[in-house]
Amino acid sequence: MKILVIGGTGTLGKAVVREFAGDHEVITAGKTQGDFQVDITDENSVKTLFQRTGKLDAIITTTGSLHFGPLTEMTAEQFNIGLQDKLLGQVRIALIGQAFLNDGGSITLTSGIIADEPIRQGVNATTVNAAVEGFVRGASIELPRGMRINAVSPTVVEESLAGYGPFFPGFEAAPAARVAKAYRRSVEGAQNGRIYKVW
Amino acid sequence: MKILVIGGTGTLGKAVVREFAGDHEVITAGKTQGDFQVDITDENSVKTLFQRTGKLDAIITTTGSLHFGPLTEMTAEQFNIGLQDKLLGQVRIALIGQAFLNDGGSITLTSGIIADEPIRQGVNATTVNAAVEGFVRGASIELPRGMRINAVSPTVVEESLAGYGPFFPGFEAAPAARVAKAYRRSVEGAQNGRIYKVW
Ligand SMILES: NC(=O)c1ccc[n+]([C@@H]2O[C@H](COP(=O)([O-])OP(=O)(O)OC[C@H]3O[C@@H](n4cnc5c(N)ncnc54)[C@H](OP(=O)(O)O)[C@@H]3O)[C@@H](O)[C@H]2O)c1
Ligand SMILES: NC(=O)c1ccc[n+]([C@@H]2O[C@H](COP(=O)([O-])OP(=O)(O)OC[C@H]3O[C@@H](n4cnc5c(N)ncnc54)[C@H](OP(=O)(O)O)[C@@H]3O)[C@@H](O)[C@H]2O)c1
Repeated sequence: MKILVIGGTGTLGKAVVREFAGDHEVITAGKTQGDFQVDITDENSVKTLFQRTGKLDAIITTTGSLHFGPLTEMTAEQFNIGLQDKLLGQVRIALIGQAFLNDGGSITLTSGIIADEPIRQGVNATTVNAAVEGFVRGASIELPRGMRINAVSPTVVEESLAGYGPFFPGFEAAPAARVAKAYRRSVEGAQNGRIYKVW
Repeated sequence: MKILVIGGTGTLGKAVVREFAGDHEVITAGKTQGDFQVDITDENSVKTLFQRTGKLDAIITTTGSLHFGPLTEMTAEQFNIGLQDKLLGQVRIALIGQAFLNDGGSITLTSGIIADEPIRQGVNATTVNAAVEGFVRGASIELPRGMRINAVSPTVVEESLAGYGPFFPGFEAAPAARVAKAYRRSVEGAQNGRIYKVW
C-alpha cells in the first residue's frame, strides 16, 4: 500500500512510519521535515500536498496542537487554537484527502486518552479529542467506495514522559511502538468508525 | 435562583423557560428576541450580556448553529461553522460566564443525540455535539467554588419534526417539555460533568 503519514516526523509519527516501513511504501509529511512539508491549518497547503502525493491507499495523521492552561483563565481565543489545529486540521485532511484515496482506502486520525480521562489544564484537549472521535463516528457512515475512517487514542507515550509526565499522574504510559500497532489494525483491518484505545 | 437561558426564545429554550418560570427568576437572551440580545459568536457581545445580567445562579444555553451537508462535498470552511457557533459559542459562554456565577452555581449546555447516533449529512453535528460533551467532562474537574457543569443531549424534539424529521428516520422524538426536565435535573441536582440523555 501507498501510505501518507502526516506528522510522520514527530514522536508518535516516527514510530508509525517504522511500523509500516518494512512492508509498505510510506511517505512522510511534516511542518518542517519529512518527504513533503505541509501546514494542516492552511487549506491550500493541504490541497497542494495531495496533488503532489497523488492517489493513496491510506492517510494517517499523527499531528495537531492544543492549548493547555487552567479553565478559570482560558479565553475563547485560546480555546480556538485546538479547534483550528488538531481538530479542523485533521478534519481538513480527511475532507480533502478522501478524493485522493483509492477504493477501499482508509483514513486514520489521532485523538488521545484525555478525551475520556480529563486532566487539569486539559479541557481544550478533552474537547478536541472527543470531537475527533465524533468526526470519525459521523464520517464513517458516509464515506463511499468502501473507504473507512478510524482514530487511535493513545495514552501518554513513554517517549513524551519527560515533557508531559507531570500532567498525567498515575497514568500508565505506552511505548510509541506499541501505539503504532493500532494504526496497522486500522489500515490493514476491515473496521470502520472505530476508536482504537491504546491504554 | 436567578437563571439565564441563552437561546430561551427558541423551540427548546421556550420549554426550558416554562419549566423554570414558576419557581425561579428566569432571564432570557436570544439573537433578536428575549430580555437581552446577544451573539454567542462575538466575545464582546457575550461579555456585555453578563455585565448586564450581573451575578447568576445558573446559566443555560439552548442555542448554536451547525452545518448540515454531505461529507463528500464538505469544505473545512463549512465545517468551521459549527465549531465557531454551537461549539465555541457555548464554550465562550462557559468561559466568560463562570466568573458571573455565585458559589455552587451551574452551567448547562446543549449537545444532541447525533453525538452518539450519526445521521447522513450530520458529521459536523456529531463532531460538535461530541465536543460539547468533551468540554463538559474536562471543565467539570476544574470548576472552583462548588460550581458544576453538565449538558443535556436531546433527541429530535417533536416541535421540530416538521423541519428535521426526514433526517431522523426511525428516531423517537420527545416533546420539548420532556427535554426541559433534564435542565432542571442539572440545575437543581448535585451532579457535575454529567450528560443527561433524553432519548
Ligand atoms: N506524545 C504523546 O504522548 C501523545 C499522547 C496522546 C496523543 N498524542 C497526539 O499525537 C499527535 C502527535 O503527537 P507527538 O507527541 O508525536 O507530536 P510531536 O512530536 O510534536 O510531532 C508533531 C508532528 O506534527 C508535525 N506538525 C506540527 N505542526 C504541524 C502543522 N501545522 N502542519 C503539519 N504538520 C505539523 C511535525 O512536523 P515537523 O517535525 O516537520 O515540524 C511533527 O511531525 C498529537 O495530536 C498529540 O495530541 C500524543
Ligand atoms: N430542536 C431539536 O430537535 C433539537 C434536538 C437536539 C438538539 N438541539 C439543539 O438545541 C439547541 C436549540 O435548538 P432549537 O431547535 O431550539 O433552535 P431554535 O428554535 O432555532 O432557537 C435558537 C435560539 O438561539 C438563539 N440564537 C440563534 N443564533 C444565536 C446567536 N448567534 N447568539 C445567541 N443566540 C442565538 C435564537 O434567538 P432569537 O430567537 O432571538 O433569534 C433562539 O433563542 C441547538 O443547539 C440544537 O442543536 C435541538
